[in-house]
Amino acid sequence: MLNEPYAPPKYFQISRDIIAQIQHGQLAPGMPVPSENDIIEKYKVSNTTARKALHELEKAGWVNRVKGKGTFVRDYTVVRAINRIFGFTKNMIEAGRKPSTRLIGFHLRSEDHSQTVNGRLYTMRGPVCEIERVRYADGIPMMCETRYISLQLCPDIHRKNLEQSLYAIFDKEYGIQLTEINQMLSAVVLEGDALKPFQVTKPIPAFRVEGVSFCGKELIIEMEDSVYRGDMYRFAAKAVR
Amino acid sequence: MLNEPYAPPKYFQISRDIIAQIQHGQLAPGMPVPSENDIIEKYKVSNTTARKALHELEKAGWVNRVKGKGTFVRDYTVVRAINRIFGFTKNMIEAGRKPSTRLIGFHLRSEDHSQTVNGRLYTMRGPVCEIERVRYADGIPMMCETRYISLQLCPDIHRKNLEQSLYAIFDKEYGIQLTEINQMLSAVVLEGDALKPFQVTKPIPAFRVEGVSFCGKELIIEMEDSVYRGDMYRFAAKAVR
Repeated sequence: MLNEPYAPPKYFQISRDIIAQIQHGQLAPGMPVPSENDIIEKYKVSNTTARKALHELEKAGWVNRVKGKGTFVRDYTVVRAINRIFGFTKNMIEAGRKPSTRLIGFHLRSEDHSQTVNGRLYTMRGPVCEIERVRYADGIPMMCETRYISLQLCPDIHRKNLEQSLYAIFDKEYGIQLTEINQMLSAVVLEGDALKPFQVTKPIPAFRVEGVSFCGKELIIEMEDSVYRGDMYRFAAKAVR
Repeated sequence: MLNEPYAPPKYFQISRDIIAQIQHGQLAPGMPVPSENDIIEKYKVSNTTARKALHELEKAGWVNRVKGKGTFVRDYTVVRAINRIFGFTKNMIEAGRKPSTRLIGFHLRSEDHSQTVNGRLYTMRGPVCEIERVRYADGIPMMCETRYISLQLCPDIHRKNLEQSLYAIFDKEYGIQLTEINQMLSAVVLEGDALKPFQVTKPIPAFRVEGVSFCGKELIIEMEDSVYRGDMYRFAAKAVR
């Protein structure tokens, strides 16, 4: 690994190292990133290289430089409207972030799937495809979802590319649009193994979202049980009479 | 204190002791309460007294007895619809709970009050009455709220009885009804001093609700910054296209 011929320049490596710390939550939004002097000392580089590393972080949109105060991790909080059917992908694009999805696993189940949402028990007829995914914004894991999809309505969905928006798959592959979603939000604390998908080590507050989605009157297309990290996510709601 | 002439019967004292543990979160919903034998041993009482204490808990609605399994703390979770203007008081009554409110303090402020909700900065003209209250269901502290009320729209509101529903005061005393509320929900962890109003000692997950309430087009009557305990509160939402 020493003097690898294709190794990227030193300033770039340093910026990646700091980005990794942001992605893993060691550097939280609003916290100062290492200063020029900190970088010189820690990485044994010149002040030109240190300055270039900080400039790279800024150019890539990870930090804000505040004149005379220092360089701070950008606030990556995303607000999601709770009253609108609006997938993660669109939500992130609208927030100016780059969404991506990683499929962790799936299971075909022949049984019905039942879940209680807001005190009512909903049952979706089997067979059901259960999928587990982690969803990222600019490489930061934002939420971890388990979704149960009706194979009656979406046959062979496990053969589609499941690392894209499910709403896009429902629409383009099956001609199905959602009409309504009932959701229940709980506040939870993620600890231990539950932190793993988020690549953080300290407990973080989170939203648990349990939901049932309809594509017609009383016709359930999918149910969900997801966890959104609370340090980077907010839910917006409008109440009327 | 020994042999106090008016001391309530032993079984009643024991039941109050267990209720206090439920109220303080030492006994969480779904957990077993001490068994007859536990009570006999801990409080040095007869099995008749122990049985009466458990019966008292059940009669008061704090526990469920499951035949052959034991006695468990009732699940006190309340679901609140997020899309409806619906105060705490009504919400609790609908859930079959007895609501109460304790005023912790108030402040009259002449300055405008500004708050950012869902990325937009809202400003309410001063003077403003800031009030802090703790709200209970069956004696359990469920949420802790700070509300900022327009004294232009509600003059002298600090002279009203502030331990009742503010919505009722707006309506009955000022003839004002809310038309819309914009809210932002965050997931947080309560620790240290933030736990005090809830009389618990271990960190609990919670919802932070920041909101702005209108009583006409762009006419702000109040803003809020509240904390709902996440172990006893859920938010329900309906999303449509």
